[in-house]
Amino acid sequence: MEANKRNLFTCLSPALIDLYDITNSVVVIIDVLRATSTITTALYNGATSVIPVSSVSKCIELGEAVGGITAGERDGKVADGLSYGNSPFEYPRSFVENKILVLTTTNGTKLLHMALDRGAPEVITGSFPNITAVCEHLINSDRDVFLGCAAWKDRVNLEDTLFAGAVISRIKDHFNIQCDSSKLAENVFKEAGENRFEFMKKREATHYQRLMRYNLEKDIRYCLSDDGANVLPIYKEDRLVVL
Amino acid sequence: MEANKRNLFTCLSPALIDLYDITNSVVVIIDVLRATSTITTALYNGATSVIPVSSVSKCIELGEAVGGITAGERDGKVADGLSYGNSPFEYPRSFVENKILVLTTTNGTKLLHMALDRGAPEVITGSFPNITAVCEHLINSDRDVFLGCAAWKDRVNLEDTLFAGAVISRIKDHFNIQCDSSKLAENVFKEAGENRFEFMKKREATHYQRLMRYNLEKDIRYCLSDDGANVLPIYKEDRLVVL
Repeated sequence: MEANKRNLFTCLSPALIDLYDITNSVVVIIDVLRATSTITTALYNGATSVIPVSSVSKCIELGEAVGGITAGERDGKVADGLSYGNSPFEYPRSFVENKILVLTTTNGTKLLHMALDRGAPEVITGSFPNITAVCEHLINSDRDVFLGCAAWKDRVNLEDTLFAGAVISRIKDHFNIQCDSSKLAENVFKEAGENRFEFMKKREATHYQRLMRYNLEKDIRYCLSDDGANVLPIYKEDRLVVL
Repeated sequence: MEANKRNLFTCLSPALIDLYDITNSVVVIIDVLRATSTITTALYNGATSVIPVSSVSKCIELGEAVGGITAGERDGKVADGLSYGNSPFEYPRSFVENKILVLTTTNGTKLLHMALDRGAPEVITGSFPNITAVCEHLINSDRDVFLGCAAWKDRVNLEDTLFAGAVISRIKDHFNIQCDSSKLAENVFKEAGENRFEFMKKREATHYQRLMRYNLEKDIRYCLSDDGANVLPIYKEDRLVVL
């Protein structure tokens, strides 16, 4: 272990977060399919901010209070009472510019609030569409790094682990990584190779299958591609804004 | 999903066990370095049974009550008050035959009792030294399969995941596997290839490093090798015996 390097940990499920001290870490919330991909896309396309909330009722309440777009899905459909869903393609510049998006997601929002409750000094969101912005920020920060996979109802998933591995493969020379979960993630990233969509298909990733049943191949392909919306969403007060 | 196939799940940490229903599953306790490797070795070498207990005081108490060998380590050394450690090489036939081994381990024992508390109808232990016996049993059983990694203080580890992957690679044709953790495990197994010791070294697996500091290379090499003690430890009443 080199004393002058910062530490990096990967946490494969929100249910494992209490095993780590995150009070000196940049926490990266990873919810590749599709919350964090959609968040960075909305911000890249000019949304003023994205407010992540945990429930549909909060989404409606807050959406009215701030005059924002209310969005979120439950079981693959736009939730009752909300106007839009969880697809990045619903938020082109022509629609989202200068607007506030109030977004309810289950896994990603939960993890974000867990991280804040546990004293994370900085929370950003990561996804393939903004991977370069994320990696540059982590390299230039003076904090440790905590890659937090939102997973699926606490079950480890392939796509969030894959993204953690992609980040690690880019930034590992800057960090001490005494963390087997990080090694697993890097491993998956290497195995996946260039064609991540084919990898998810071949490996029968559970959420890949779920989204394909809703004909969301286009979403999956976009969410697995680098730098389509390369900005850095950072949590300030109660919302995500571009750093 | 083929309706006539049984289900297989992999759980990468005891902290995730409550996400799964294990009431119709054979639970495989996996604690590769070194608890489950040592258990199968002691039984292969003729121990009557191995009684896994959670604390040193219980180990001493029960060891006296049954006239057994008391064994276990804390922080890499034989625990105060116990006679032997956690290395498979401490239990040759000349020493262990016809004896009862009372063994205290932290991660493996905890997971075993968690599985029993949650209604697992059958609990066996798995390790590379008995991988063939494990796989044959799982194929011939009529139950679902739950591969439970003991991990390291709830943190996911490379070696238990590697073993889960090795099992999956052998038996997957017999099961429905709708479980991303299983795909991760299989991935790691493929990546590791023939020389598992080198893989653990190259990936700087945390527990590999811990044991190497105690000069336990021989233990690691044995615990990563197939079928050195190929019997099937199964939990009956309060102890592990050969099926």
